[in-house]
Amino acid sequence: MVTSPRLGTGANQEAIRRHNLSTMLRHVHLAGPTSRAELTTAMGLNRSTIGGLAGELAELGLTTTAPASTGARQGAGRPSQSVAAADDGPFVVAVDLGVDRIIVARIGLAGLVHERAEEPVGGDREAWRVAADIAALVRRVADGAPSGAPMVGIGIAVPGLVRRRDGLVRLAPNLGWVDVSPGPMVLAALGVDVPVVIGNDADLGALAEHHRGVGVAIEDLVYVSGHVGVGAGVVAGGVPLAGAGGYAGEIGHLRLTAGGGECHCGNHGCFETAVGASAIAETVGCPPERLAGLEAVLEAFDTAPPGLGAIGREVGEGLAGIVNAFNPRMVVMGGYFRFLYRLVPGDVTAGLDSATLPAPRESVTLCLPGLGSDSVLLGAAELALEPLLADPVGVLRAPRLSPTA
Amino acid sequence: MVTSPRLGTGANQEAIRRHNLSTMLRHVHLAGPTSRAELTTAMGLNRSTIGGLAGELAELGLTTTAPASTGARQGAGRPSQSVAAADDGPFVVAVDLGVDRIIVARIGLAGLVHERAEEPVGGDREAWRVAADIAALVRRVADGAPSGAPMVGIGIAVPGLVRRRDGLVRLAPNLGWVDVSPGPMVLAALGVDVPVVIGNDADLGALAEHHRGVGVAIEDLVYVSGHVGVGAGVVAGGVPLAGAGGYAGEIGHLRLTAGGGECHCGNHGCFETAVGASAIAETVGCPPERLAGLEAVLEAFDTAPPGLGAIGREVGEGLAGIVNAFNPRMVVMGGYFRFLYRLVPGDVTAGLDSATLPAPRESVTLCLPGLGSDSVLLGAAELALEPLLADPVGVLRAPRLSPTA
Repeated sequence: MVTSPRLGTGANQEAIRRHNLSTMLRHVHLAGPTSRAELTTAMGLNRSTIGGLAGELAELGLTTTAPASTGARQGAGRPSQSVAAADDGPFVVAVDLGVDRIIVARIGLAGLVHERAEEPVGGDREAWRVAADIAALVRRVADGAPSGAPMVGIGIAVPGLVRRRDGLVRLAPNLGWVDVSPGPMVLAALGVDVPVVIGNDADLGALAEHHRGVGVAIEDLVYVSGHVGVGAGVVAGGVPLAGAGGYAGEIGHLRLTAGGGECHCGNHGCFETAVGASAIAETVGCPPERLAGLEAVLEAFDTAPPGLGAIGREVGEGLAGIVNAFNPRMVVMGGYFRFLYRLVPGDVTAGLDSATLPAPRESVTLCLPGLGSDSVLLGAAELALEPLLADPVGVLRAPRLSPTA
Repeated sequence: MVTSPRLGTGANQEAIRRHNLSTMLRHVHLAGPTSRAELTTAMGLNRSTIGGLAGELAELGLTTTAPASTGARQGAGRPSQSVAAADDGPFVVAVDLGVDRIIVARIGLAGLVHERAEEPVGGDREAWRVAADIAALVRRVADGAPSGAPMVGIGIAVPGLVRRRDGLVRLAPNLGWVDVSPGPMVLAALGVDVPVVIGNDADLGALAEHHRGVGVAIEDLVYVSGHVGVGAGVVAGGVPLAGAGGYAGEIGHLRLTAGGGECHCGNHGCFETAVGASAIAETVGCPPERLAGLEAVLEAFDTAPPGLGAIGREVGEGLAGIVNAFNPRMVVMGGYFRFLYRLVPGDVTAGLDSATLPAPRESVTLCLPGLGSDSVLLGAAELALEPLLADPVGVLRAPRLSPTA
């Protein structure tokens, strides 16, 4: 970036002010209630400028001001005020679309979940029907919003390859979707105009764990998602790894065994074939028709059923390739890997140890998600909130936004 | 970044000036000779500020000014002056340390190779001996520098895992190095004090191809390096992918076949075992003692020898995993892959097609390096030039720099 000497003109002062509003809102969104004294330090601005910005965010309905809980006193003895995200302000609706169920939540700034709803996905996964189900759930949670609070976006996590440019779902194999655009379909069913963003479930899990889960301050992490399929979301150098089209992290189709079982992708020996839901379900005696509920089946075990250790070892060996390729500081075990890892941690670790190069191995930790089963849902909210965080004034002044009631 | 309203004080004006000098120098370094009119547009500064900055870079011996070759005329009819990197200015020495040979070059701004030297690595690859050989070559090329031109750094590319923090080579299996610090060893043998930076060879190949090779303007690329071992350097979103410690891209140890041959890393079925130099050498009848010269052996073939197609297919299948994981726009075939790909492009492509998901497959291209066999060497120069590009005034005013003569 070139810092131009033309700073200081009216247009630039306005740009700086909006930039500073964004910075303050993002800080409060990610770090929680923050005293004005802390904001002064964090943003390198003086107290009166901070006060003006905080007042403006409050006027926009984005934040509230309260005495700082730390009780720290500044200057002439006045307690420092803290700035916090408003409970009744703008919100997004986040959607975690799984193969078997749709989870939807109304979520505000600071990742606060105000209301949630869940329905099973019917046997017919035709995109228009699923979109209608999503729209009904979105309306249900949006209707409970405080009067006047605007819905600023909808974020939908999909278990498939999502083109970043326009949210086209190129492939969601376990939904049977090829080249589907769920965003416009949901909007058509909903009958309102609001920005809709689509993301890959594992990418959004990684984002949320990095923003407010176990990976805060971890610049390099991989979130491994095990639902019916297997994928990964990668944060590298503090930035989500997207790849050229938005498809990075498709580790489910790394080959583990050249002669292995056939994968739905048409190849043999994919990681997903070795450690996917079908393989685990067979081992733990979960009937094929309950495949999508494997997470709950695994959760119910107190000790590992026979055979799960061998799958845990294959999980670890597969993760070794991922650790060698991405050199993360942390691997977050999401989806059913959460429960598998609880049951057979030693086998997973042994597999990892056996096939990771020493240098990347010694600095990586396997972790459970800090956000439990909500990583993907909260990531979808982060995605939908991003335009508001980047330019609160611009988004709230856009004419088309209106409460959905 | 917070844009502070305190801009405009003396200290900040100095910071802005140094920032702008860096921006202009980097532009000329990467884009080549640039007219002042183009710089005015690119940097968003007025003509007199651009003139002042260009004058200052020229005074520092970094650039020269000449009539723009395009002959474009500006304003009152005066031809625009162009700013170009000085031929006789500061330089770095880049080192491409291979398993069999050391290539060293004196390289200036704009990646201009002024002089190069090459020697085989002796049978004894003990680090101190290799460092002494490197130092002798560095001195040879540095001695030919114009009088007064300062050596501002040495960049060394190593075929191994390099810890980014301090340049410690954690593992260079084909040199037999474990936890070796070549930087201080080279400096001790050289007897001068100059910054030395160490990087992984594939990472530096990726950097150079992105800066001035086939991957200019390509934000997501993978450079695959085949020497004795196999590795990759990744640029993601325009930024080199380092990972937590600097080890990202170790794709040589992704598993292709669970029951495959034993790899030097202790595992079985690594990509490197299937498509590494030993496997290729055996196929093309290259004796084991000439393994390190495999590139030249492959180069000498006009048509593919029998059996190379099968290896080409395995290369493609391995690249499929890399394309699924990183979703690059481009894969650059470096090292001996350059010649292998020329001989059996159809087999490599067929392997890639067979195992890549359609979405990442359709946007990726396999390419030969734009810099031929110099990618890694030029990447080492880029690494060593970085401090000068980031702060030319600060680096050239540092007291300890002196010509090496």
